[in-house]
Amino acid sequence: MKNAKRVAVLGATGLVGREMLKTLEQRDFPVSEIVLLASPRSEGKIVKFRGEDVKVSAVNESSFNNVDIALFSAGSKTSMMWAPVAAQAGAVVIDNSSAWRMDNEVPLVVPEINPDDAFKNKGIIANPNCATIQALVALWPLHKAAGLVYMNISTYQSVSGTGIAAIDALSSGSRAVLDGSEVKDEVYPHRIAFNLLPHIGAFDENGISEEEWKMVNESRKIMHLPNLRVSGITVRVPVFRCHGESITAQFDGSISPERAREILSAANGVVVCDDPSGSAYPMPIDASGKDAVYVGRIRMDTGLDNALAMWVVSDNLRKGAALNAVQIAELLIR
Amino acid sequence: MKNAKRVAVLGATGLVGREMLKTLEQRDFPVSEIVLLASPRSEGKIVKFRGEDVKVSAVNESSFNNVDIALFSAGSKTSMMWAPVAAQAGAVVIDNSSAWRMDNEVPLVVPEINPDDAFKNKGIIANPNCATIQALVALWPLHKAAGLVYMNISTYQSVSGTGIAAIDALSSGSRAVLDGSEVKDEVYPHRIAFNLLPHIGAFDENGISEEEWKMVNESRKIMHLPNLRVSGITVRVPVFRCHGESITAQFDGSISPERAREILSAANGVVVCDDPSGSAYPMPIDASGKDAVYVGRIRMDTGLDNALAMWVVSDNLRKGAALNAVQIAELLIR
Repeated sequence: MKNAKRVAVLGATGLVGREMLKTLEQRDFPVSEIVLLASPRSEGKIVKFRGEDVKVSAVNESSFNNVDIALFSAGSKTSMMWAPVAAQAGAVVIDNSSAWRMDNEVPLVVPEINPDDAFKNKGIIANPNCATIQALVALWPLHKAAGLVYMNISTYQSVSGTGIAAIDALSSGSRAVLDGSEVKDEVYPHRIAFNLLPHIGAFDENGISEEEWKMVNESRKIMHLPNLRVSGITVRVPVFRCHGESITAQFDGSISPERAREILSAANGVVVCDDPSGSAYPMPIDASGKDAVYVGRIRMDTGLDNALAMWVVSDNLRKGAALNAVQIAELLIR
Repeated sequence: MKNAKRVAVLGATGLVGREMLKTLEQRDFPVSEIVLLASPRSEGKIVKFRGEDVKVSAVNESSFNNVDIALFSAGSKTSMMWAPVAAQAGAVVIDNSSAWRMDNEVPLVVPEINPDDAFKNKGIIANPNCATIQALVALWPLHKAAGLVYMNISTYQSVSGTGIAAIDALSSGSRAVLDGSEVKDEVYPHRIAFNLLPHIGAFDENGISEEEWKMVNESRKIMHLPNLRVSGITVRVPVFRCHGESITAQFDGSISPERAREILSAANGVVVCDDPSGSAYPMPIDASGKDAVYVGRIRMDTGLDNALAMWVVSDNLRKGAALNAVQIAELLIR
């Protein structure tokens, strides 16, 4: 796959789909032809790619003929239906939904961590959950140095992870609250404006959410640490873009905050932003639209031995979704 | 102190001072006379108490003569200056600042936890930090059942903890963002609207904030657990009122989520709100103006043995400040 590729994007009109197109442009990915796909509802819409108007087609049985790489971001059901079709047609699917992530036949890849796994694909590669990716990009270099044994993560997740409608809900809801008028909740079970929702995905019988299980199971699979102990909660906060994460990480060996800063400063995909007394720490408003995982507030944990605490922010639409998917595609054509 | 008391409120025009007055009214505290005090800047302002206009006086050397109980919420510096004056004049000061909390001569009291400590006062009793109070009200009944050994807390703290100016900053900042106009940051080092600030209080040389140390040290003092292990981060979020907290609590013995729900349902000051599949969990918009500490998302922790995870929300101006102070005053007059 040395030359320019035919690339399809399924879910091309969604937030992540558009970010995928922008990322392909920005990284100058060798695209010989772009095929924009969506549900029949979006058929005929025009989306720009490299300055050209491209018409969106409804996905169908022949959509993936001669496609080399198919970037999917259209939800789990759509992915369950169409990823096998695309793979059968000869494409490699890089899927942003949760449909295939825990399938033993499907690699789950963060290029900074387990690039080799991408090459074991049988036509489908899964892109991990946004909150998992940013935590692991920060923790992996530290794991290599000191051996990660336990992590406790509380997330502060922006509404853009839910999609365009949630961005509108936060905007219109915030305006309604400020104006003292009624807030209608149409995306979340409760108003998100000036509120906190400890609810991302459905809950199992033990009261643990899908998003929380993703943090546990995807982390173990990506890092090849099947026994890693993981505590966590996932919480939606009234922020438009970028997720924040409070992380306590316990290691087999001791590792100082100074050493962690050195290691992370040299790590791929990480920017250390850590001068709290100078009010410098990662924030959503700074990370929006950026590629890096920003790490700060790196300190000895006050409660556990051999542990560090830190605060990690990254753009959930970029490294948490579109960028990671395009980086996987870049691995394949290297 | 059986009969009605002369009560002074220092900081009567602030957010917590006003909430203290409202709480005294709502709980029908036996007030024979109210003395409203503030800095000279607020002298002459009129504040309502039980339907009457009361004039605010500038605090001075004779302000506390014949005062029985002095509720302070005027910041640490003011408290350092005036609490000894009030105590010397014969009043019992209940101080909401951090000035006296870790003083060995000053009890630090949450009435549901260590009421007896209040009676060891030498004229000053400290009201704990808001984020600490709500965590401990939820954890204390579980500690009594199973023996708390470790807690890991990530906070999601509203701007009202900072004061009236911060509420205005969140309102005006949010409106500016929605209107696409410039946001001026005058209260926090960075914009809080649609953002996250992992920065509450000054940082020490190890990069740990004052608010984070309060969680560690105040928890140990209040619960009389000097060796309790505590990890934590404190984060400001774009919410007007009520703090959220993600808590992992590890115990000496095993305790099931079902048993924890039973214990907490019977505990003073706690309301269990825990049906996540029915979208019922504690939220700031529900807890605002309420007295209780709301606990939900109670589940076996996925990462630690003998541990529970939970999500706790309470009104930082009520139980986190004014209500806890008035409850201490109620202890004294019982």
